[in-house]
Amino acid sequence: MSQFENVSVVKQANVYFDGKCISHSVQFADGTKKSVGVVLPATLTFNTGVPETMECVAGACRYKLKDGDWQSSRAGESFSIPGNSSFDIEVVGEPYHYVCHFG
Amino acid sequence: MSQFENVSVVKQANVYFDGKCISHSVQFADGTKKSVGVVLPATLTFNTGVPETMECVAGACRYKLKDGDWQSSRAGESFSIPGNSSFDIEVVGEPYHYVCHFG
Repeated sequence: MSQFENVSVVKQANVYFDGKCISHSVQFADGTKKSVGVVLPATLTFNTGVPETMECVAGACRYKLKDGDWQSSRAGESFSIPGNSSFDIEVVGEPYHYVCHFG
Repeated sequence: MSQFENVSVVKQANVYFDGKCISHSVQFADGTKKSVGVVLPATLTFNTGVPETMECVAGACRYKLKDGDWQSSRAGESFSIPGNSSFDIEVVGEPYHYVCHFG
């Protein structure tokens, strides 16, 4: 499924790290919130509040959970980050397109 | 209205100019398509196929239509570009958040 149906989308984007990561917030009829976004080539560290699952839609990244090793994620793959934690993400070459699932 | 309701949104972003402009495509129940996007600080030239209206959601830009003068657009303001034409856009400082209306 390449698109979300019957959702609301916030017009203003979320811009992180001077635009190295840009996302738009999406909300489903049941109140579930996700975001659709892009990480441009960069190495960034993100903090989580609630747990997150990063689903790769296109491109690829390497990521490292706190106290974890570097691993890869590409289109069709996902990785999950605990709440109140952090992770490093490295994108090289092409942008990493993602859906972020919360909770 | 800060968000679109009952739309579909394509998960993969449109990335232009090495990420200086990133948008997500949105489709309405009646088939109308728009995009929600961001232009980071840069001066870019875009070509149009169909006519477009650029509605500023947050931030500001300067723009120049073909054979026109530089003008400003800020949150709540819009400008329209003819089809099969082009326009220059200059963003300084904060990102320019927009909705692009087609046709």
